[in-house]
Amino acid sequence: MKPRDPITRLVNAFRKLPGIGERTATRLAFFVLNESEEMARELADALVEVKERVGLCTVCCNLTEAQVCEICRDPRRDATTICVVERTQDLRAIERTGDFRGLYHVLHGLISPLDGVGPDDIRLRELLTRLQTPPGGMEAPQEVIVACSPSVDGEATALYLQRLLKPLGLTVSRIASGVPIGGELEYTDRVTLSRALSQRREM
Amino acid sequence: MKPRDPITRLVNAFRKLPGIGERTATRLAFFVLNESEEMARELADALVEVKERVGLCTVCCNLTEAQVCEICRDPRRDATTICVVERTQDLRAIERTGDFRGLYHVLHGLISPLDGVGPDDIRLRELLTRLQTPPGGMEAPQEVIVACSPSVDGEATALYLQRLLKPLGLTVSRIASGVPIGGELEYTDRVTLSRALSQRREM
Repeated sequence: MKPRDPITRLVNAFRKLPGIGERTATRLAFFVLNESEEMARELADALVEVKERVGLCTVCCNLTEAQVCEICRDPRRDATTICVVERTQDLRAIERTGDFRGLYHVLHGLISPLDGVGPDDIRLRELLTRLQTPPGGMEAPQEVIVACSPSVDGEATALYLQRLLKPLGLTVSRIASGVPIGGELEYTDRVTLSRALSQRREM
Repeated sequence: MKPRDPITRLVNAFRKLPGIGERTATRLAFFVLNESEEMARELADALVEVKERVGLCTVCCNLTEAQVCEICRDPRRDATTICVVERTQDLRAIERTGDFRGLYHVLHGLISPLDGVGPDDIRLRELLTRLQTPPGGMEAPQEVIVACSPSVDGEATALYLQRLLKPLGLTVSRIASGVPIGGELEYTDRVTLSRALSQRREM
């Protein structure tokens, strides 16, 4: 049941965000109440717009406003190398290093037997499709770099990809360890990420 | 200039909230992207609604959807005692103690000579009006409890109120110290707040 009081409703809505408890949610709500209506509307509009206008790239599953994302559309990028990441945030982290000129594939998850997440629950079918039938005008991929985090699920996903893709004649490589084990790719510093990319080893 | 990219726009909108830096804002934005559209719309609606529907009580300046807030409308409350607080959050904190049965007045600020906030910049005129001319059906106030935080600005405001209101024949009291000096009223535990209320001393 929704509470009638708009302040309580706003507090509850803020509480659904990660890392925001009741105290912080209350603080945010009163901040909004004391700020200009414009500020509140800006955030409200941005929330609606992001859900309305942003979807998945039909090639690489990156978040994009277009059918095909900017990276996949860029003719200067090397379509023969595809870097597989778990989340869009990881793609952004690698882009920030400026070291990678290939394309990406965003899985939106990792295979996790313990959590009941199987190969069909992440964007693996889309990866297989583009590897076997490259979209019009794109060179055929030759190498797949598995840049999932070096966690249990990341390693499980890497192993699965290796078994799936090597028989297709593709080189499958893994980013070098150097990213701290158990750490999050999104928050790894640029130097470590660059090294992990350059020291990738064939699987 | 507004960025064109909806994700960046959302990140920027989140960053305007207090205590939220770029990293947290990015995490929140991607959380929203991965969550249901319903969740995003709920927060967006709550933001707009709170600004549209919540205004100030014409008597006590508490936040309310009505012209006069629930507390001021409650005939069981003792209209002869008015507790003056800095912010709505402080009113809520005192209400949670369950110890106070009088009415409130929310100043929405404190007199702060250093920050250039004078008596005309907070809701003092509204306080004076209701003390001199109680709204229809309300008993005349006899005591004003100054429950501003025991900070420099809180003390300055208390002193100002004492000088302003004692000549009107009102008892002016101050919540007992007991609330830690420099601390925030909103986050004081109930027991301490109850004691501070009961040990108020006449000024």
